[in-house]
Amino acid sequence: MAINQKLTKRSDDFAKWYNELILKSELADYSPVRGCMIILPLGYALWENVQRLMDQEFKKTQVENVYFPALIPLSLLQKEAEHVEGFSPQLAVVTHGGGKELAEPLVIRPTSETIIWQYYADRLQSYRQLPLLINQWCNVMRWEMRTRLFLRTTEFLWQEGHTAHATPAEAEERALMMLGVYRKVLEEYMAIPCYQGVKSSQEKFAGAENSYSLEVMVQDFKAVQAATSHNFGQRFSKAFGVTFLNEQDERQHVYTTSWGSSTRLIGTLVMVHADDRGLVLPPRIARTQIVIVPISDSENRKRVFDAAGKLENTLREQGYTVKADYRDIKPVHKFYDWELRGVPLRIEIGLKEVTAEEATLVQRDTGKKMTVRQAELSELIPGIFEEMQRRMFERALQFRDEHTYVVNSFKEFREVLEEKKGFLRAHWCGSNSCENDIKSETEATIRTIPFDSEPETGECVYCGKPSGRRVLFAKAY
Amino acid sequence: MAINQKLTKRSDDFAKWYNELILKSELADYSPVRGCMIILPLGYALWENVQRLMDQEFKKTQVENVYFPALIPLSLLQKEAEHVEGFSPQLAVVTHGGGKELAEPLVIRPTSETIIWQYYADRLQSYRQLPLLINQWCNVMRWEMRTRLFLRTTEFLWQEGHTAHATPAEAEERALMMLGVYRKVLEEYMAIPCYQGVKSSQEKFAGAENSYSLEVMVQDFKAVQAATSHNFGQRFSKAFGVTFLNEQDERQHVYTTSWGSSTRLIGTLVMVHADDRGLVLPPRIARTQIVIVPISDSENRKRVFDAAGKLENTLREQGYTVKADYRDIKPVHKFYDWELRGVPLRIEIGLKEVTAEEATLVQRDTGKKMTVRQAELSELIPGIFEEMQRRMFERALQFRDEHTYVVNSFKEFREVLEEKKGFLRAHWCGSNSCENDIKSETEATIRTIPFDSEPETGECVYCGKPSGRRVLFAKAY
Repeated sequence: MAINQKLTKRSDDFAKWYNELILKSELADYSPVRGCMIILPLGYALWENVQRLMDQEFKKTQVENVYFPALIPLSLLQKEAEHVEGFSPQLAVVTHGGGKELAEPLVIRPTSETIIWQYYADRLQSYRQLPLLINQWCNVMRWEMRTRLFLRTTEFLWQEGHTAHATPAEAEERALMMLGVYRKVLEEYMAIPCYQGVKSSQEKFAGAENSYSLEVMVQDFKAVQAATSHNFGQRFSKAFGVTFLNEQDERQHVYTTSWGSSTRLIGTLVMVHADDRGLVLPPRIARTQIVIVPISDSENRKRVFDAAGKLENTLREQGYTVKADYRDIKPVHKFYDWELRGVPLRIEIGLKEVTAEEATLVQRDTGKKMTVRQAELSELIPGIFEEMQRRMFERALQFRDEHTYVVNSFKEFREVLEEKKGFLRAHWCGSNSCENDIKSETEATIRTIPFDSEPETGECVYCGKPSGRRVLFAKAY
Repeated sequence: MAINQKLTKRSDDFAKWYNELILKSELADYSPVRGCMIILPLGYALWENVQRLMDQEFKKTQVENVYFPALIPLSLLQKEAEHVEGFSPQLAVVTHGGGKELAEPLVIRPTSETIIWQYYADRLQSYRQLPLLINQWCNVMRWEMRTRLFLRTTEFLWQEGHTAHATPAEAEERALMMLGVYRKVLEEYMAIPCYQGVKSSQEKFAGAENSYSLEVMVQDFKAVQAATSHNFGQRFSKAFGVTFLNEQDERQHVYTTSWGSSTRLIGTLVMVHADDRGLVLPPRIARTQIVIVPISDSENRKRVFDAAGKLENTLREQGYTVKADYRDIKPVHKFYDWELRGVPLRIEIGLKEVTAEEATLVQRDTGKKMTVRQAELSELIPGIFEEMQRRMFERALQFRDEHTYVVNSFKEFREVLEEKKGFLRAHWCGSNSCENDIKSETEATIRTIPFDSEPETGECVYCGKPSGRRVLFAKAY
């Protein structure tokens, strides 16, 4: 049992800490297929919570769920040139089916734009059918050489939304709207602060006109692209011939978007909030919000366990997810165990508490301990959780802001990146060559051109040419 | 638009009726990959409802969700001889990944026993970890030559539950428990009556010791196997070396089960309840329970539409899924359209109704029409839906029982099967050869040895040898 083995410290080896934590907290594990992971009950429960919240928000914007096949004929994928170029190196190819070699190889979807727009090419006829707003929850496959549990795996679970519109303005509005939905779920439920903005032309999605993303700083100061939303303009509709008759009875190509978020969010959640003792889960996303640990000698066991069971039922009736831990192991091992698994609130009940009708509360994120009357619990807990949720967000925001630096020369850029790490707000001339040179010399990429980046006259940190606004650089996962 | 085109009648060509209905009601469609289907919003919404209900029931029995990789090394699949033999002809094989030929081919899971028990072989150590109760919602791939939308497709969506137990009795109990869960969802929510029982040794799942199933009669009198639950005994635990130390500190192999249900359920739902005008959906599973159709000339439009909108909000607040249809087409076309899509209750509101504060209700399954006071609606609708739910189940049950025949000779067997069609309760000696001969001569297979089949002395309809109970024969999808 891993209960007593301490985790590697974040400050000693962040990558090792992360991997150990994912494995020990039993979020996920490696599989016999390289690059593919097994998502264990705790990890999947977090994903289910994310799914439920996202899906509710999608449906509020009139999106309907569908399911398109996982297998896509290679020829379909090849219809949009940039798209196939972007995904070709990562494809998993099915060459045999039902005991025979296939006439045409099929790829397991790396994403579904091609099969979706091929389908609607025949079916969209009129502006009355627009906007088309669909989404699917599914697995996708992108062959990866270097993988990291949750953050980068060959197979991952995600949702991919796809929409078609009559006008470019509507498509743009939808792409931004969905970025806003992601931001809401990340910030309000997962307590993850996000930079939002548009990708540089080299960093955008294969085939997109504009790619928007949420960029998150994790505790080793690197960036994680947590969700993306793309405006494809008429790229796919022209490649697949998706047209409609507008109100003036003219045939036009539709404007499409797509937007995605994946099990990568679980890795992001861990990297933003967890500490050297284990996961730290925000109350609004935790699988188990409260764990009750009864503490007693064998003499008083029944009395203490009964009190714990009663409290468990009361809290469950109040709508919390609660677990009482009656295992026959030392309380301190239970503390370790539930701290490792990130349960937001621990309630300890011993003979002293039972006698005094009290309970001792320990908050996971701060370790703060307080003894309160049991009768007060139903009044206290909502406030504790609200405060914890707010505090976790604020702490992550403060951490991010403290490690986001304004730099004004390439020398400063390199020094800050090497010594302080973090995100850099720097001027950039807009050229691919400066972006590429900075990347090859520092490993930092343009994460996003943030929406909140005010117009400001300056000089590109690399070439000195004029620049109109700062962009956000960072090393990224 | 398909609105005015009548469906083929069930009595004229059941298969054609079914396919037309799936396509016209926009439940699903064909895809460019042979055998793989596109599940459209209405079809997926029904699947989501089934998923939600099943998942709730699973979790009540302590099952936790997980996700194992879609790709399985061929060598893993080969570890259990019967299992690989059963699935080999149906495999989709990935031979290339990331631009290179793979050292070992990977198959897309046809089911996940092998990858799951390989994983737990290393991780199960003690009786304290048992029972292990997991489930996953995912896609699977089984190459099919003859496909039928929802009922038989190369790729389908399903859940597969897998459990491990310390004793054979617990495994058997779990296999039966999950069959009960399926039956509950089918009978109570989908209004589908089920025969439940055990499979003959030739019809059971590849590698199982006992396979249990729910068998449903659809309107062309054929059987659909709607869900299955398998007790594998120690088959997989021995093939994969899944052992644990029991309370006496002895190393033993675990006993495993698996149980599955799929998007096939949506096809079953259609084939059981739909009629010549379209889908007929039970209120507890329908995507939209109530459609409101405002009927007015242009002069009174605002007044009627306002009343419809007000009613829509009221009913939605009462917890129903409601849609008001404001499209600019004739009311009769709206009627056709929503009948085609199976909405349980239609509420018509015209100027007459608005003036009298009334509403006209039309029930989808019977066509029964009644005009009631709007103020009474909130009191009336729960009863209407409860009655409709019960009535749909009873009607399907009566249909099934009226077409299930007791036959006592092979001559009678053939005659009834050819002339009356339906299910046959017949004596069978228990031999594979009689089962095979009956199948090759009549196409009827043993669907199940029903739990409610009382012990009864008789003679095998085929060979005349003694038999102890009747089994259920039918032609099946």
